[in-house]
Amino acid sequence: MKIPAPFLKTGRTRVVIEHLSPSVDNGRYPAKRTTGEWVVAEADLFIDGHDHITAVLMHRKKGERKWQEKKMDSIGNDRYRASFQCEEEGYYEFTFRGFVNHAETWRSNLLRRLGPEQDQAELKVQIAIGMDFLDRIGKRYAKARSAVKRWKEKLESHDALQCAISDELSLFLQQFPLSEFDTLCDQVLQVAVHREKARFSSWYSFFPRSASEMVGRHGTFNECIALLPRIQAMGFDVVYLPPVHPIGFSYRKGKNNSLNASPDDEGCPYAIGSDEGGHTEILDKLGTLDDFKNLISATRELGMELAMDYAIQCAPDHPFVKQHPQWFKWRPDGTVQYAENPPKKYQDVLPLDFENDDWQNMWVGLYDILEYWINVGIKIFRVDNPHTKTFLFWEWCMSEIAKKHPEVIFLSEAFSRPRIMEGLAKKGFHQSYTYFTWRTTKYELTHYMEELTHGPMRDFFRPNFWPNTHDINPYHLQSGHEPQFIIRYFLCAALSSNYGIFGPSFELMIHSAVPGKEEYLNSEKYEIRHWNWSATNKLIHVISMMNKFRKENVALQHTNNYVACHVDNDHMMAWLKCYGDNKILCVINLDAYHRQSATLHLPLENAGLTHNQTYVVHDLFTDDRFMWHGSSNYVDLDPYGLPFHLFRIESI
Amino acid sequence: MKIPAPFLKTGRTRVVIEHLSPSVDNGRYPAKRTTGEWVVAEADLFIDGHDHITAVLMHRKKGERKWQEKKMDSIGNDRYRASFQCEEEGYYEFTFRGFVNHAETWRSNLLRRLGPEQDQAELKVQIAIGMDFLDRIGKRYAKARSAVKRWKEKLESHDALQCAISDELSLFLQQFPLSEFDTLCDQVLQVAVHREKARFSSWYSFFPRSASEMVGRHGTFNECIALLPRIQAMGFDVVYLPPVHPIGFSYRKGKNNSLNASPDDEGCPYAIGSDEGGHTEILDKLGTLDDFKNLISATRELGMELAMDYAIQCAPDHPFVKQHPQWFKWRPDGTVQYAENPPKKYQDVLPLDFENDDWQNMWVGLYDILEYWINVGIKIFRVDNPHTKTFLFWEWCMSEIAKKHPEVIFLSEAFSRPRIMEGLAKKGFHQSYTYFTWRTTKYELTHYMEELTHGPMRDFFRPNFWPNTHDINPYHLQSGHEPQFIIRYFLCAALSSNYGIFGPSFELMIHSAVPGKEEYLNSEKYEIRHWNWSATNKLIHVISMMNKFRKENVALQHTNNYVACHVDNDHMMAWLKCYGDNKILCVINLDAYHRQSATLHLPLENAGLTHNQTYVVHDLFTDDRFMWHGSSNYVDLDPYGLPFHLFRIESI
Repeated sequence: MKIPAPFLKTGRTRVVIEHLSPSVDNGRYPAKRTTGEWVVAEADLFIDGHDHITAVLMHRKKGERKWQEKKMDSIGNDRYRASFQCEEEGYYEFTFRGFVNHAETWRSNLLRRLGPEQDQAELKVQIAIGMDFLDRIGKRYAKARSAVKRWKEKLESHDALQCAISDELSLFLQQFPLSEFDTLCDQVLQVAVHREKARFSSWYSFFPRSASEMVGRHGTFNECIALLPRIQAMGFDVVYLPPVHPIGFSYRKGKNNSLNASPDDEGCPYAIGSDEGGHTEILDKLGTLDDFKNLISATRELGMELAMDYAIQCAPDHPFVKQHPQWFKWRPDGTVQYAENPPKKYQDVLPLDFENDDWQNMWVGLYDILEYWINVGIKIFRVDNPHTKTFLFWEWCMSEIAKKHPEVIFLSEAFSRPRIMEGLAKKGFHQSYTYFTWRTTKYELTHYMEELTHGPMRDFFRPNFWPNTHDINPYHLQSGHEPQFIIRYFLCAALSSNYGIFGPSFELMIHSAVPGKEEYLNSEKYEIRHWNWSATNKLIHVISMMNKFRKENVALQHTNNYVACHVDNDHMMAWLKCYGDNKILCVINLDAYHRQSATLHLPLENAGLTHNQTYVVHDLFTDDRFMWHGSSNYVDLDPYGLPFHLFRIESI
Repeated sequence: MKIPAPFLKTGRTRVVIEHLSPSVDNGRYPAKRTTGEWVVAEADLFIDGHDHITAVLMHRKKGERKWQEKKMDSIGNDRYRASFQCEEEGYYEFTFRGFVNHAETWRSNLLRRLGPEQDQAELKVQIAIGMDFLDRIGKRYAKARSAVKRWKEKLESHDALQCAISDELSLFLQQFPLSEFDTLCDQVLQVAVHREKARFSSWYSFFPRSASEMVGRHGTFNECIALLPRIQAMGFDVVYLPPVHPIGFSYRKGKNNSLNASPDDEGCPYAIGSDEGGHTEILDKLGTLDDFKNLISATRELGMELAMDYAIQCAPDHPFVKQHPQWFKWRPDGTVQYAENPPKKYQDVLPLDFENDDWQNMWVGLYDILEYWINVGIKIFRVDNPHTKTFLFWEWCMSEIAKKHPEVIFLSEAFSRPRIMEGLAKKGFHQSYTYFTWRTTKYELTHYMEELTHGPMRDFFRPNFWPNTHDINPYHLQSGHEPQFIIRYFLCAALSSNYGIFGPSFELMIHSAVPGKEEYLNSEKYEIRHWNWSATNKLIHVISMMNKFRKENVALQHTNNYVACHVDNDHMMAWLKCYGDNKILCVINLDAYHRQSATLHLPLENAGLTHNQTYVVHDLFTDDRFMWHGSSNYVDLDPYGLPFHLFRIESI
């Protein structure tokens, strides 16, 4: 009988390594981090019997030959943990190694072996065992030889026992481990590291064609430049524009999604392409490519970035339709079925057929659009309905972009079923739209936050919270009630490190809806609107302050550090966010019409506080400071004042 | 720019397949089932956009070339399910396939496309699309051709629309799917199928040397044969004996684990081996190999099976120590450190060194012991302290045995940390000892049952519940209080389909302990005891009836069908077990001293009952029948009567 090959190699490796973390779908996809962040790596390592083991984390930047190693700490129940920092954009790799540490077993059993009466014969045996370990260390590690000689002398002295059980010897044995029959984990896990903006961003979106100061005039990029200081003053750092390309004429939509456009209707910017050009052209009325480049520079000069829309679809008069008819699925009547995202119908738009025989050229063609705009200066794309294009296309496309332009960030605009939204994030999207827009009660918000930040999604799905978008005027904002807008704003900006608003509808509290729908009435998707860009109000003031506090408090620049706090009132909600010494406690009254009060229970351990400590909670908005003691404290919020506290926890 | 290889092959496959189940450690280990059981296989399958997909389960017995296929049902949230039955012992394989079902998409969108006014031009287009599907079916499936012709005629008739949306056409299109660009799951999962005994067994263990009718005489196999009818009458089906091999003389233990044996001490059977022989020899005083074979046959003739102990360790005078000194780890003083399982010390036993250079021969040597006893007629092994031998040895050893003797069952006697107990089960143990022995409160028992039957363990860890063992006389039984014994007995036999007792200590309610420890006083591990084998009592009566009901009610022959029922009294606990039409409801009073009552809430849906239904709960022990209505009903149990109900739910 012969031992078969897989066991022949590993037959004496005793350590089992399992349940690696962070791991997305068992390592099929990389976990995500941003530069400077730490990866807290964990695994179960265990062994037969009662010998001690050493667990080692191995990590490296992808492409490097040499692994960095770090001894892992036991955190109970055979689980071990160690961390490494992701310094640069790109990919990191990690895995684990474990081995039996016989020297440590010897040391830790020594006193027990001697018994309460310190059996001297046994001591002699034990010291001889120790000497043997030292000899083997000397043989294996040249640089340990002089130390080995000193330790051997000590073990021969009459202080042998004290020396053997000393912390110094323990450290020495750890430094020069006699590893043998190591178990090397059979899986190498990946971490995709993105720039910080992927984790911390504040988006402002608007339609450039509504940017004009003059009623009825089509806005231009130059007029957009004039709006930037206002957006900067509110504290945003990403300015996102819906498509800026030529708009199709056939089946053009009229106002309020009408199927019959009048000659002066401008059409929907998502009906991309006409004989003026397709995805790499700019709509004449907005300006020239140079104007667009000026807008990019002007945005950058104000410390913000311009984000473009990437919408893979074509108006019927898009050049692709003539140049690449094979990319579309033609019906027997010579038409192409228009695009849909039920219940929405896009009669002015044709979808591409990802099953067509010329798919490879189509993939490259679609990729080239991105490459073109990246070269123009765009580094952030909001991707329109990515869930109506194939998953494999995104996986390929984003991996190619990541190789050449690791700084480029994609936001997935998919409002779809959970597996689909997760699937897109796994394939590479840096940020994702979420269900936040429709989560209003404490129960819903708390459960959703738990799912996002403490379930498997935390490692691959970066939420970007929006209270509204140009597609969604949610029912709960259709009252136009200011405290309600403030509540929704504070929730998105304080729960999620990535968030955005569709302006100026949001900050001007525009709320007229198509009756019975969550659509804006007279939506800018179908017509030019004129706005009072110099208006000001309480909400704008709150936005400006909040964005300032987000920049000043690193705890608000993370999402996964969310920890729910118990509040004994279902109209109120509280959470803690800590990062290093920065500790932020958020409290909100979700009832936009009535004052609410409650006892809040702060999880002291998470806040680094002890049971008997007195501390200050400093409301950053009002500059009020309250002395709190212990976990349970009183809170009271009036929606007509400010419906929230943004507390920084400070020492006295 | 070229599309790289992995995408070139699969670029047009649109379906994503994820989160396969059942899967142990992402397919690293097989899930376990027994012959006749069904594997309920699930996976998430989803796609971009809004086309319909077809999900297919593929399964086969390992070694077969052809896959069996089964269309999966959607169970919501993009998850699909289908089942297959494991008919024979051995290994089964399964995986998944998914494809876009364009014909189904066409059919289901048809009416919507026509609009409320049934656009006739559009109908023409839609019918033409349908004709194209039919043509392609005809080209692809020769045997569908005549049907295709008929369907085409119907689609050309003026009933075209009715025909197109008919269920008949739907069935036809399902039968001949135009699958294209299929996604084939990249993982094939395994199921290990064992004989039914691995799932349903009732163990009785005793020390054969205590089998004698005469006080002070060493029991023999022949005397064991005389005890079998009693064990059969109690309804057990596995008779397990501690080691029956020669017992070492050096460092032999005396009574109550004393280090100084007197000359007439028989030693501990776990100190295996002396100059009389090792693991393949039988202790003279018990009888001959032929006697042992007779015992095996006699057990089998009574419908039971004999299980042996497999304890890998050697007394210092075991033949291995002289024949294979290289298998042991020698200390500088020429001794071997005795075995331990802290806090237990086995001074009479030497452990084998699984890191020794001659490990391959040692593995084979240890394997040969099993092979020897299997050939003698043993098909069930209780493995002593498997967690002090290496995991890889078990994986290899049990896989070899499984190949040659798929009927052989191993029970893991590891009382250790969770990851270790789980690890052994993953490596191949068919059954495992558990923490049940120390779980006494409703909270503990309920959580433990949830973990075992509704967490990942359900697929690889088959619990075997023991209220006591020869090593464990738990504190809660040291009172000797009969109702407490009955409660513990009912819990193990009604919660777990595999259970066992250490007799006759258990059924005679022996409870004297080494003071302060959970060890039997005057334990049979260290001395011969004499028992009144003809004694009878209420507990024995309960045991006999319970084993009968377990045989008669298939629901009690499974463990994973456990469903907790809410009872509004923390001293009471209830659970439901259903299998097919057999529905068992167990209710127990955990308070051994006071009568308790409560309202029990039966989860009607799990019991296949409707809200307004009246049904009978039939107490199998007392033959009482109660008419119950709806979910909430009153229960009341007196520990001095019977502390439990074993209800069968029956129709009126």
